[in-house]
Amino acid sequence: MKIGILTSGGDCPGLNAVIRGSVLKGVISYDTEFVGFRNGWRGVVEEDIVPIVRHDVRGLAKQGGTILGSSRTNPFEGEGGGPEKIQEMLDRNGIDAIVAIGGEGTLTAARRLYDEGGIKVIGVPKTIDNDLAATDYSFGFDTAVQIATEAIDRLRTTADSHGRCMVLEVMGRHVGWIALHSGMAGGAHAILIPEQPQSIEQIAEWVESVRDRGRAPLVVVAEGFKFDDMAEAHSHKGLDAFNRPRLGGIAELIAPMIEERTGIESRATVLGHIQRGGEPTAFDRVLATRLGMAVVDAVHDGAWGSMVTLRGTDIETVSIADAVGTLNRVPQSRYDEAKILFG
Amino acid sequence: MKIGILTSGGDCPGLNAVIRGSVLKGVISYDTEFVGFRNGWRGVVEEDIVPIVRHDVRGLAKQGGTILGSSRTNPFEGEGGGPEKIQEMLDRNGIDAIVAIGGEGTLTAARRLYDEGGIKVIGVPKTIDNDLAATDYSFGFDTAVQIATEAIDRLRTTADSHGRCMVLEVMGRHVGWIALHSGMAGGAHAILIPEQPQSIEQIAEWVESVRDRGRAPLVVVAEGFKFDDMAEAHSHKGLDAFNRPRLGGIAELIAPMIEERTGIESRATVLGHIQRGGEPTAFDRVLATRLGMAVVDAVHDGAWGSMVTLRGTDIETVSIADAVGTLNRVPQSRYDEAKILFG
Amino acid sequence: MKIGILTSGGDCPGLNAVIRGSVLKGVISYDTEFVGFRNGWRGVVEEDIVPIVRHDVRGLAKQGGTILGSSRTNPFEGEGGGPEKIQEMLDRNGIDAIVAIGGEGTLTAARRLYDEGGIKVIGVPKTIDNDLAATDYSFGFDTAVQIATEAIDRLRTTADSHGRCMVLEVMGRHVGWIALHSGMAGGAHAILIPEQPQSIEQIAEWVESVRDRGRAPLVVVAEGFKFDDMAEAHSHKGLDAFNRPRLGGIAELIAPMIEERTGIESRATVLGHIQRGGEPTAFDRVLATRLGMAVVDAVHDGAWGSMVTLRGTDIETVSIADAVGTLNRVPQSRYDEAKILFG
Amino acid sequence: MKIGILTSGGDCPGLNAVIRGSVLKGVISYDTEFVGFRNGWRGVVEEDIVPIVRHDVRGLAKQGGTILGSSRTNPFEGEGGGPEKIQEMLDRNGIDAIVAIGGEGTLTAARRLYDEGGIKVIGVPKTIDNDLAATDYSFGFDTAVQIATEAIDRLRTTADSHGRCMVLEVMGRHVGWIALHSGMAGGAHAILIPEQPQSIEQIAEWVESVRDRGRAPLVVVAEGFKFDDMAEAHSHKGLDAFNRPRLGGIAELIAPMIEERTGIESRATVLGHIQRGGEPTAFDRVLATRLGMAVVDAVHDGAWGSMVTLRGTDIETVSIADAVGTLNRVPQSRYDEAKILFG
Repeated sequence: MKIGILTSGGDCPGLNAVIRGSVLKGVISYDTEFVGFRNGWRGVVEEDIVPIVRHDVRGLAKQGGTILGSSRTNPFEGEGGGPEKIQEMLDRNGIDAIVAIGGEGTLTAARRLYDEGGIKVIGVPKTIDNDLAATDYSFGFDTAVQIATEAIDRLRTTADSHGRCMVLEVMGRHVGWIALHSGMAGGAHAILIPEQPQSIEQIAEWVESVRDRGRAPLVVVAEGFKFDDMAEAHSHKGLDAFNRPRLGGIAELIAPMIEERTGIESRATVLGHIQRGGEPTAFDRVLATRLGMAVVDAVHDGAWGSMVTLRGTDIETVSIADAVGTLNRVPQSRYDEAKILFG
Repeated sequence: MKIGILTSGGDCPGLNAVIRGSVLKGVISYDTEFVGFRNGWRGVVEEDIVPIVRHDVRGLAKQGGTILGSSRTNPFEGEGGGPEKIQEMLDRNGIDAIVAIGGEGTLTAARRLYDEGGIKVIGVPKTIDNDLAATDYSFGFDTAVQIATEAIDRLRTTADSHGRCMVLEVMGRHVGWIALHSGMAGGAHAILIPEQPQSIEQIAEWVESVRDRGRAPLVVVAEGFKFDDMAEAHSHKGLDAFNRPRLGGIAELIAPMIEERTGIESRATVLGHIQRGGEPTAFDRVLATRLGMAVVDAVHDGAWGSMVTLRGTDIETVSIADAVGTLNRVPQSRYDEAKILFG
Repeated sequence: MKIGILTSGGDCPGLNAVIRGSVLKGVISYDTEFVGFRNGWRGVVEEDIVPIVRHDVRGLAKQGGTILGSSRTNPFEGEGGGPEKIQEMLDRNGIDAIVAIGGEGTLTAARRLYDEGGIKVIGVPKTIDNDLAATDYSFGFDTAVQIATEAIDRLRTTADSHGRCMVLEVMGRHVGWIALHSGMAGGAHAILIPEQPQSIEQIAEWVESVRDRGRAPLVVVAEGFKFDDMAEAHSHKGLDAFNRPRLGGIAELIAPMIEERTGIESRATVLGHIQRGGEPTAFDRVLATRLGMAVVDAVHDGAWGSMVTLRGTDIETVSIADAVGTLNRVPQSRYDEAKILFG
Repeated sequence: MKIGILTSGGDCPGLNAVIRGSVLKGVISYDTEFVGFRNGWRGVVEEDIVPIVRHDVRGLAKQGGTILGSSRTNPFEGEGGGPEKIQEMLDRNGIDAIVAIGGEGTLTAARRLYDEGGIKVIGVPKTIDNDLAATDYSFGFDTAVQIATEAIDRLRTTADSHGRCMVLEVMGRHVGWIALHSGMAGGAHAILIPEQPQSIEQIAEWVESVRDRGRAPLVVVAEGFKFDDMAEAHSHKGLDAFNRPRLGGIAELIAPMIEERTGIESRATVLGHIQRGGEPTAFDRVLATRLGMAVVDAVHDGAWGSMVTLRGTDIETVSIADAVGTLNRVPQSRYDEAKILFG
């Protein structure tokens, strides 16, 4: 048995731990051979393949990034793309199955490759934003929350020294889990997430209430947060014309709006790529290792078209078809829970 | 409504976050008043009570330890102990309910106080070892695993430089969760836990196999690990006579045994109290905050004799009677999963 | 003897450790009394004074920020400003001497207060950028370098995964010490500092050379870096019109310029206020504590108009007049040393 | 020109950064070739030599340990030892010079090889204890202090929760620098170092004084600390008979002595090998990199028999003969400075 592994989409702490978990499990338990497709699906469609032996995964549990590289290539694109061409490439290289580590796009594509062409592929969910509904948590999320929380801890003391309002922008394009968890952990006074549009008036009210209690306000905002009325949306759009989205965006928009409304000196910090890189937390290393091991079992069980997930403390296998399509949004109850701490 | 909070038993990162979560939730949502019993049940039986206002919990989410102090006092002991005396004390101080944050002993005592005397008490499970079956994880555990993992990361490089075998002892008197998770996260070559007695011959075999692959062996051992035969048990017992248990124990016993059998220079490190103190991880801060908030809801729901727990990603309320009594052991499947990585 | 302490200017890890060092030294060795002026010189001119007793500084060595607050107020401004009014205020409050912890502006003002009005003031240099020539290192600098280095470590893995060029902007308005040290520590492929203007062509050449060696380029840039020719200066200036300086600036300008010239996808990260806050490193805690203790000795020696500094491993006292006025620039030799690692 | 590098003696964070600094500097500035002697002087006497190319040092600045391995072998021992045999080996392998990274023993041996046999060798001082007088600081020391300080921070909260006295043993066989700096940074209430013997009565007095102020006492002790009278020496010696030195030693001796005298529950923690391993701090990475680069300059200058050192912020070259032989003890003034904080 020879398995080809690929990592696709945005970087995420724990990718290397998944690769290591798979390779060790396969080599030791099943005498499986491994190759890697370089740079995600691009390595599949371009037949860019490297062998992976046990020695290659040494020390990888703690190493951020992915030794295989990543890209946003789609397996249905390009000359080598589509199920037929991919099956030919697999046959040519004696590869029996693909383990695809990636987000919703990758998992959907993997399922389509199986449905349309019988490609033997199994997925490992990767979403630093924690936006996949099929798994309680995905690896990388805990690390991102920890990094964001440490940033909040640092911002807090400097906010207090100057009596400033600090606005920290964290990842979360469609869902606000990183903002919610880091905000709760760091003691934020307002948490702004895509699922819960707010008006600048409401935000200013929270900020002023904090100031009135003698504290320096700290606001955590997910990159995908949007205001709940047209005026702000327009003003946001206006700034886009000056190419703001490339500059990190929402925090740098909100901070001056808070300052204007409250008179409290306000500063924006955009964490950005720091959240995606570096050593995974122990939690993520364990989760990623277990997922990596479990997917090899799933391969040997022939569970094609499925993916491995975390449920409670168990690793389970679910159909990709059932798993993707639904965004794992922050439910109202979790936002209400956190909201107690606002203002 | 006035709630009295206590923290009991060994220190655990996140205790202060629970207190903060409860006080903020109670003050803001229910206009509840709070007092603290100092040093666990001792504060109850000795009527050592301090008021807790909102300002007192400021910044506590990230602070290790417990502002209330702790002890191993039993509420049934002493002059002020027992349900009747405690109820009198509560009445005298206008306290309506007790929130007891503690381990199996505390939870059992809490339940007995409710069963035997109708004391209105609700528990929050605290076990850094993660040995309570009623909750997926308990706060403090993730922090302990993270600290142990960082220690393994550090030991690994120095082990490699000298070609030594390193034996790291972590907490875990009855269950091996901290050893299992930190060992998986850190890439240990053997994980020794109370649930899985091993012979020194087996351990030496793993160590030699690692050495034969050109690596420096790393062994993680839970403090409660025991050998599986009499000879070692005896030798262990013998060393006890020289007061070894106070010296950390098992790692310092195993390291020279490994060295003797394999000829590989071996060194023991006992992490000890470092695992119990300091800042909780973001994971533990969120969990502890949520438990602290939920227990106040449970108080207002009158769920006496119950405790709050984590199930998947949800905080639930369960009867203490159902929850305690069963140790949350590392199941065979989880040990087998990790064992792939041994040797 | 009663000493009034103030902290002035931008936040810096170690301010609280200086306060603690002074208060403990004064209370224990000299039986000195302490008060704090709130928010820097503003507390002096507005007579906003709080007592500081031993208990207030408990645990402060590790705490970021300043319990006294800070501001950019000038002691010569406002109704209570100027040497005469300040002396009256000191007399009115029985304060014998001022310990002023601040940067070049504060130290210069302190000296002027002494020269023009005989105000008994001694300075403690505070510059996170390490731009004061009179001291080998100033507290806070080591912490900022450590934080920037950890950010580089994280960016590196994600850069490698995607084959991207990462541009990290760190503090350093007039001097490039933080960029130089964190760049060396993190293995940056180009370090851009105010002392060494470069052309975008040179930067692109370094970046391409790195790419050609198969690595993901990592550029560290100090916020005060400037291009060495007019074209870039103009383009930089043009962007300023859209209020860029408030958005972090230079990294977000350079990244797209690199991408345009090299075709390598490039991303900017601006560390910002995170560098100023949070726990100081052990190095900074020791340095700040020693400076805080030494300044109390200097007060008791009557060394008015002087400041305490680090020279090698010794804390010394030097005249402020001799100490300020010269910027501690990165010398050519140190840049040449680091430049070996570029490209 | 071909340089052979070796790392000798106990592990120390920054060894790899020195190797990387040397190789990059040599390859880029001088077109130098490099080989490594494996496991310190053992690789020299056993002619165990590996090539080192630029690619081998990639990412090494942040990696603990030494890729060359280490040992405590003496270059005058063994069949291949002594200046004559070593010169033959160097000639045989076309090696022009040796860069020896090690402590006092290594540096002394290096000097003797040069003096007695004209071996072209230059030293880089390595002492995690900071016990070499010729350099302000040696790499690894800052990392050890940081690790010890973080341990103190963690122990403090758990000490406070239980009202316990914590005794932390850190490295420092002959000098107390790690204890002094981490103790000052962490706010220890007593710092016990080899240079300053104390009686158990004095220690107990400090501990009781802390308790009387309502705090949990924290004692930091260097492994080489000794009591100042015979009684304790005897008791210490007695315990040795039960093989205590292998168990960490002094902290585990002192804790029960404190408990016996003061009645305060006391616990020992021995940090041990954790201080030697893992990622160096940014400070140590910069220092190690600069020393590594400077030693290559010294080789090209033919400064045989010398070593590179840190003086203030400068890297200098000094004669080994002048540099070794004097222990860098904690001076009385530095102990007095810290002592203010005791009790």
